[in-house]
Amino acid sequence: MIIRILTLFPQMFDATLGSSILQRAREKGLLDIACINIRDYASNKHKKVDDYPYGGGAGMVMTPQPIFDSHQAVVEELKLEKKPRTIYLSPKGRVFNQEIAQELAQEKELVFLCGHYEGIDQRVIDELVTDEISIGDYVLTGGEIPAMVVIDALSRMIPGVLSQEESYEEESFYSGVLEYPHYTRPAEFRGLKVPDVLMSGNHKNIDTWRRKKSLEMTMERRPDLMEGLQPSKADLKLLAELKKENKK
Amino acid sequence: MIIRILTLFPQMFDATLGSSILQRAREKGLLDIACINIRDYASNKHKKVDDYPYGGGAGMVMTPQPIFDSHQAVVEELKLEKKPRTIYLSPKGRVFNQEIAQELAQEKELVFLCGHYEGIDQRVIDELVTDEISIGDYVLTGGEIPAMVVIDALSRMIPGVLSQEESYEEESFYSGVLEYPHYTRPAEFRGLKVPDVLMSGNHKNIDTWRRKKSLEMTMERRPDLMEGLQPSKADLKLLAELKKENKK
Repeated sequence: MIIRILTLFPQMFDATLGSSILQRAREKGLLDIACINIRDYASNKHKKVDDYPYGGGAGMVMTPQPIFDSHQAVVEELKLEKKPRTIYLSPKGRVFNQEIAQELAQEKELVFLCGHYEGIDQRVIDELVTDEISIGDYVLTGGEIPAMVVIDALSRMIPGVLSQEESYEEESFYSGVLEYPHYTRPAEFRGLKVPDVLMSGNHKNIDTWRRKKSLEMTMERRPDLMEGLQPSKADLKLLAELKKENKK
Repeated sequence: MIIRILTLFPQMFDATLGSSILQRAREKGLLDIACINIRDYASNKHKKVDDYPYGGGAGMVMTPQPIFDSHQAVVEELKLEKKPRTIYLSPKGRVFNQEIAQELAQEKELVFLCGHYEGIDQRVIDELVTDEISIGDYVLTGGEIPAMVVIDALSRMIPGVLSQEESYEEESFYSGVLEYPHYTRPAEFRGLKVPDVLMSGNHKNIDTWRRKKSLEMTMERRPDLMEGLQPSKADLKLLAELKKENKK
């Protein structure tokens, strides 16, 4: 997979691109990822990349020329025959989730466009952008951190990036309920003990305890996720137990 | 405001902490932010910070000792009399939004705890963590990028960090509907023209056009946001127009 990031702040990506998963994906030859500085493509003398909005209003808007030209440079570098899938990180976009990560991980090339200032000229969005994606309902300074979020999530889904063990975690993680609590050594730390069942060696009891904890936490914290759950017979029994315990 | 970040990968924050908004907040003396490397507090010879989970299962779990001790170091450094508000970035947490950003921006001290591996020992969460926060329903490699998201969003809400003009944008941004499209110079770019109304100088028409575009985009993309909207009389008229246009 090839990823190109159009940004005014390429140095923001330095540390992230060297982080564990991305570094591993690059070393294995599964991911070719690089930043392009939009400002390098500004054709005006002062390398200006923004201007006042037509129609008035606060803030500055990123001008179309440097973005169009930096995007074209990617098309030429990669010798693409059609426009690449181009993602603009924006609070107006589809809300990112694991399914979108899975879908994006199927692409051969992806371009990320990171905006700053008030926003970017709508003609860029109309002509170049294929997907507007929002990572959540909150205001951020620019598209760089959201791009890191999306790239981290989707690179985990590229076949071969995660080890078999990690892939297993990934699946269990998105089984539709929240994950059970984890404990590790020591068995007692500052008077705080690990639950007996986890030390019992009885795997059936451990699985039941973990599932019950997952269901309990999901009901408490994310009732919206419970609606999508297809409970098994065993789940129904655990849910009935939790209901009884809550009444006490 | 004082922020301390407990992490195994402090270098991941280097570029972000130097980014525009955070840099400005620090220079103005409004924000004191630093990373603490959890590994520095591991008391074992090999500076090991993880171990196998009790009860079996894939992955490794971060052990309690280095986290408790690095957290205590923050309490001592800042001479805190009570436990600071401590945020653990976790997919099990409350889903982050602008209201939570606003709430966190009121605190004097905040500690962020970034997990890696399968997760962290539950005793850390039970004893030290006051808030579990998720930035969205997707799986990421660690808590570092989510911490950057939360810190970026909340530092924008600290009084004095944004200029008056920027604060105005912020408000308009979260008026409950998606933002209208932006255009800047040139008026025509590669045959693509800026909408006439924006060049008209008629501010009433411009405001109406922008509001209509906002409503249209919100209806199309985020019908969930429309449910929370209290439409004005003018909004109702625009919504009726949009309905008519859609029927054609």
